[in-house]
Amino acid sequence: LEDEEDESQKGINKATKGGIVYGEYLQLDKVLSAQVLQSQQKGNKIHDEHLFIVTHQAYELWFKQILWELDSVRDLFIKNHVRDERNMLKVVSRIHRITMIFKLLVEQFAVLETMTALDFFDFREYLSPASGFQSLQFRLLEAKIGVADHLRVPYNRRHYRDNFHGQESETLLSSEQEATLLQLVEQWLEMTPGLEKDGFNFWGKLQANIEEGLKMEKHKLEKMEDSEAKEDLLADLNKQTEVFTALFDPKRHEHLLSKGERRLSYKALQGALIINFYREEPRFQVPFQLLIALMEIDTLMTKWRYNHVCTVHRMTGSKAGTGGSSGYQYLRSTVSDRYKVFVDLFNLATFLVPRAWVPKLNPNIHKFPYMAECYDSSYNSYSSEDSD
Amino acid sequence: LEDEEDESQKGINKATKGGIVYGEYLQLDKVLSAQVLQSQQKGNKIHDEHLFIVTHQAYELWFKQILWELDSVRDLFIKNHVRDERNMLKVVSRIHRITMIFKLLVEQFAVLETMTALDFFDFREYLSPASGFQSLQFRLLEAKIGVADHLRVPYNRRHYRDNFHGQESETLLSSEQEATLLQLVEQWLEMTPGLEKDGFNFWGKLQANIEEGLKMEKHKLEKMEDSEAKEDLLADLNKQTEVFTALFDPKRHEHLLSKGERRLSYKALQGALIINFYREEPRFQVPFQLLIALMEIDTLMTKWRYNHVCTVHRMTGSKAGTGGSSGYQYLRSTVSDRYKVFVDLFNLATFLVPRAWVPKLNPNIHKFPYMAECYDSSYNSYSSEDSD
Amino acid sequence: LEDEEDESQKGINKATKGGIVYGEYLQLDKVLSAQVLQSQQKGNKIHDEHLFIVTHQAYELWFKQILWELDSVRDLFIKNHVRDERNMLKVVSRIHRITMIFKLLVEQFAVLETMTALDFFDFREYLSPASGFQSLQFRLLEAKIGVADHLRVPYNRRHYRDNFHGQESETLLSSEQEATLLQLVEQWLEMTPGLEKDGFNFWGKLQANIEEGLKMEKHKLEKMEDSEAKEDLLADLNKQTEVFTALFDPKRHEHLLSKGERRLSYKALQGALIINFYREEPRFQVPFQLLIALMEIDTLMTKWRYNHVCTVHRMTGSKAGTGGSSGYQYLRSTVSDRYKVFVDLFNLATFLVPRAWVPKLNPNIHKFPYMAECYDSSYNSYSSEDSD
Amino acid sequence: LEDEEDESQKGINKATKGGIVYGEYLQLDKVLSAQVLQSQQKGNKIHDEHLFIVTHQAYELWFKQILWELDSVRDLFIKNHVRDERNMLKVVSRIHRITMIFKLLVEQFAVLETMTALDFFDFREYLSPASGFQSLQFRLLEAKIGVADHLRVPYNRRHYRDNFHGQESETLLSSEQEATLLQLVEQWLEMTPGLEKDGFNFWGKLQANIEEGLKMEKHKLEKMEDSEAKEDLLADLNKQTEVFTALFDPKRHEHLLSKGERRLSYKALQGALIINFYREEPRFQVPFQLLIALMEIDTLMTKWRYNHVCTVHRMTGSKAGTGGSSGYQYLRSTVSDRYKVFVDLFNLATFLVPRAWVPKLNPNIHKFPYMAECYDSSYNSYSSEDSD
Repeated sequence: LEDEEDESQKGINKATKGGIVYGEYLQLDKVLSAQVLQSQQKGNKIHDEHLFIVTHQAYELWFKQILWELDSVRDLFIKNHVRDERNMLKVVSRIHRITMIFKLLVEQFAVLETMTALDFFDFREYLSPASGFQSLQFRLLEAKIGVADHLRVPYNRRHYRDNFHGQESETLLSSEQEATLLQLVEQWLEMTPGLEKDGFNFWGKLQANIEEGLKMEKHKLEKMEDSEAKEDLLADLNKQTEVFTALFDPKRHEHLLSKGERRLSYKALQGALIINFYREEPRFQVPFQLLIALMEIDTLMTKWRYNHVCTVHRMTGSKAGTGGSSGYQYLRSTVSDRYKVFVDLFNLATFLVPRAWVPKLNPNIHKFPYMAECYDSSYNSYSSEDSD
Repeated sequence: LEDEEDESQKGINKATKGGIVYGEYLQLDKVLSAQVLQSQQKGNKIHDEHLFIVTHQAYELWFKQILWELDSVRDLFIKNHVRDERNMLKVVSRIHRITMIFKLLVEQFAVLETMTALDFFDFREYLSPASGFQSLQFRLLEAKIGVADHLRVPYNRRHYRDNFHGQESETLLSSEQEATLLQLVEQWLEMTPGLEKDGFNFWGKLQANIEEGLKMEKHKLEKMEDSEAKEDLLADLNKQTEVFTALFDPKRHEHLLSKGERRLSYKALQGALIINFYREEPRFQVPFQLLIALMEIDTLMTKWRYNHVCTVHRMTGSKAGTGGSSGYQYLRSTVSDRYKVFVDLFNLATFLVPRAWVPKLNPNIHKFPYMAECYDSSYNSYSSEDSD
Repeated sequence: LEDEEDESQKGINKATKGGIVYGEYLQLDKVLSAQVLQSQQKGNKIHDEHLFIVTHQAYELWFKQILWELDSVRDLFIKNHVRDERNMLKVVSRIHRITMIFKLLVEQFAVLETMTALDFFDFREYLSPASGFQSLQFRLLEAKIGVADHLRVPYNRRHYRDNFHGQESETLLSSEQEATLLQLVEQWLEMTPGLEKDGFNFWGKLQANIEEGLKMEKHKLEKMEDSEAKEDLLADLNKQTEVFTALFDPKRHEHLLSKGERRLSYKALQGALIINFYREEPRFQVPFQLLIALMEIDTLMTKWRYNHVCTVHRMTGSKAGTGGSSGYQYLRSTVSDRYKVFVDLFNLATFLVPRAWVPKLNPNIHKFPYMAECYDSSYNSYSSEDSD
Repeated sequence: LEDEEDESQKGINKATKGGIVYGEYLQLDKVLSAQVLQSQQKGNKIHDEHLFIVTHQAYELWFKQILWELDSVRDLFIKNHVRDERNMLKVVSRIHRITMIFKLLVEQFAVLETMTALDFFDFREYLSPASGFQSLQFRLLEAKIGVADHLRVPYNRRHYRDNFHGQESETLLSSEQEATLLQLVEQWLEMTPGLEKDGFNFWGKLQANIEEGLKMEKHKLEKMEDSEAKEDLLADLNKQTEVFTALFDPKRHEHLLSKGERRLSYKALQGALIINFYREEPRFQVPFQLLIALMEIDTLMTKWRYNHVCTVHRMTGSKAGTGGSSGYQYLRSTVSDRYKVFVDLFNLATFLVPRAWVPKLNPNIHKFPYMAECYDSSYNSYSSEDSD
């Protein structure tokens, strides 16, 4: 024990010799002096307002961090650094970090919810007209990820941007003119190797395979004896056939795009499907992780919205918000698929097909995504692990 | 759907009419301008330093909130407001809030851990001599809860207060002279109704019951035929007898106090045991919740320390800390029961006895803790739910 | 160190001497042999099906625990044990335990989501027609808490009970005939002391106070000089007046009940409001915690539903469910306030009033909820903590 | 709304047409009938024992899942499938899944902790001699990951395996003879490309670079004017030099191995360092993620142990365990670095060096880890993102 204690005491205190110390480094004079209670200013100090302030400041701190990561990732895409695959680890790690922050932010409502409706009521009137709808950073975050302007629920029948003025309004406007994460991912997906019509021609091959597959399936079913089961199976097959017919119809895609039910270009959608089907190829492992992480962001933003709604319902019942929104009703309406950005990645699950229908990589074609030198086993043997 | 949308759009935007808005209320100009990267200042901007700063600022924000709650609870005790039981809900709710914040802070390491050792290495040198050991708020928090000065692991063989200077050092010193949460809880426990020697005389009754109980147990065992099982049971009984003999020996208590293995006065310990045994009496339900919440704080602080150690090990291996501590080794040594404040509450579990040995509340005695008017069933019937 | 190690080695192994051991106690032979992969049965073992099975079994295990707690709490209410206030700690602790389990279950989706849509696709066909909609325990849980039969979203245009047959169907039916948690809480709330018209007459007093308060407010506003601000304030006051007029109109309550927008009787609603306004009175502290915990259950069930929807969207896109539901669309429609059971408790926040409007407890009336002997300070002093 | 509802009702109930349903699929008859309360068997049903049983069964269910993943990963290594890099996604995903399960298991203690020491005391005696130390699956898990037999804390001065008999004892023994995850990872690390002495010769180059770097650093410092600062810097440099001298000394490595302070072979340690330094090379991105995930497992197992200790302390104080261990003291002693398996990966952080000291990949050498075709930018430009 003594040895161990000695070990733990071996340091030399460097702070005595000058240089920046903890409090200066973190500018705690600013951060920790920013909690001014409106209730106290107005002569009726309410204990719980402090929690309300700190919670919202913590949200804003983390929003700043998310924007920091988001901007750096967008920059990697904009400058085309993602074409150097070495940067993909950075991209996927930073998107993953954003998801970790969002998880924390979802948890954080539990702290605010230790304040009851009655506690909130005691200082609520002092806050008006301040309101979370005025959070610039949250709006930037939505815009930069790619929440579609025309799909948003209006706020008191007006555009959400009308809540912002002067410098803030300009910042918002200019952020909306930058490339969104969605657009950048779209461009990157369009470059997915394998899409080349005069090359591997993934899309053409896939369509051929699926049509062939469905035809054989139908053939098989038609040979069955008539029965209710046969009819059900045929009905299922028809439904499936419709789904795939629609998938290969570019006009259908345009139609869904115009309604906001798809957000990616047709080519990008194809690229995403390549990455999904060949996710185990070394070239696609990290891209696949990126697609998963992007869905995670969508899911977590929607969970954040939902947790927010729950907290607000608890605190205010069906009262109007401090800033003048309809409160709960308004927020409830934003927990909607219209706010999902990477909705196409979720819907890919609709288009999965049996492994046998996925276009094979022949040794030559195979080379394009698979480059590592120590590869030494055949495709067959590699998947044997799961089937033994 | 249309109706619902109408409902969500019913608000009127109040922010257009003047008054404080969100950003001003939260003083975001201060909070969001406090992220200055040392690496950037020194001409080598490292992306991940931003995460490092924001994470630590978020810790400090929440520490401020914990101190806010802690001071308000201590104040309720100091001003004797806890003698009005109506304040107990406030006390227990605020202590519970502290536990919720600590849970978030334990989670928060997961965000910092998205930074790898290599990412940290890139800017680590720029931070020196800043170090988490210089966090004033964390030290205040430890002191105000009641971490014992003489039980602390020294820091580089010196007192931890030597890390602080000027105003900070004075703040620390004066906080150490205030009553700690531990001391205040101790005083409150000493007033637990039922302890009065000339009244219910809980301690005297309990000792008599336990002695009688152990004697009867021994008697029963001695009548058994000789066997290995009998010997084992007698050995167990002897151990138990030793435990209780020690419990009723005030000198033993003083001895453990002097070693820091107990922290509460003998009388306070007795009060805590009353609250545990009679926790279902209306008078003791909320006090019992308070004891549970205090243990929770201890556990969470220790989990916070442990998670901190894990993060540091991951980031720095066995390198010295930026402030000059031995780093991992030092932190590891602070994850110790010596830092537990409410250790006696945990150890109460050692002194539990069968329900039959707990001094009965006869109808008259019963009155003291039980006051609610609508009580209408006998003690026997009330516990029937579990035994049918 | 040696001493400590000695301490840690002091035990005697009891298992060598006979008696039940760990594996028998937990019946691990049954629990750990229940993982049979359908894919493997059908000759195509898919690794991830094991995760799918274990996750669902863990859900069912915890559902059983929730039902265990729920039944015990309902039993305490049914047998009127709650009239003995000593049982309230038990009630609130067990409801709290249910919330803790639900929190874990919400987290648990994160484990299942480590399975991608592609992994799921590989064994999905083998599961049909098994489906989560066939979980008896989940339906029991909904029914016993009090999800209203007529407010449910139908399942493929039919009653959800049609998914169950034989014994299961009967169990469900009979559970629907038992008193739900909602009904039991309602009865208990109706007995809240203070409601007696010939006693404290809370409701009458409250209505008088509010009417007087609104009148004075109006009077004050009318004396203001004409301005836009004045008009806004008057408009706000009118809205508020409407809200309270509706609150005191029993017919309005009946109307909302019939639409399912309220679920509690008018008297129970009044009881809940008493508990909220006087929550700091010792008599109401634990009842207030119970109301909070009940809201928590509602919130967590709805979060559980929402997380479920997110997982399903990710796994299946917009495909039909294995059991034949429309899948994502169906589940999405159940994340609705129609499934909230304690919706009235949330809406209480709508009816909060300034502290000055809450009927005062005069020393005599005060006695009813406040019984603890050591009370020794006046109402004024007790609330001073927040206003100094 | 109507359309949406129609959408949600479109399914056809497949369960009515035969086939396996939910309850059969999950074998709920076995899983949900395995909760037998010993207290009830012995005529004194204690409500909370049900929670105790269900919690432990949930732990065992998840342990089974962890073993399922662990065995599949070990199998991929044993069969050398990891040499086909396409399998690395599978490996890293499954290790990641294990970490997600462990996170849930760490959370799960919060549910058990809703049971107080007093609740536990009521049925504790009925459990003896069953004890968590008899969990076969937990021991298998430790053994298969690679907890070192000789580093374990003994259990009542005996080997932990003495708690197991018959089939269980044999299962344990045979599992100890299989290759552990640690050993398999070690073999894989030893094959890391770049280690070849007659090839890239990473280790030789690194040693040369570091020696040169330290020499230049010393030279620079010696030219400074004499001052306290100079002395401090020289002292730091000496410490650093010692660290690296030790790193390049194979005998030192053997010595640390024999003491259990290192667990990987010297060559594997070198491989791990390559992966860390060149983690952004496409060839090493997923391997780097694997190393991170392995550390995560170690950290989470240790957090699991620590949370377990905290729960036990709360429930039993310093009483002996039901199985006869010394209880808290024993468990406390297992929260130790001796139980860390991938301790070397943590300690890599000690050996990080400035980027300039890392051996450069010249275009030819570069080719070995970097194979993707679309690479088109120079090393300089690729890292520019962080330094602008």
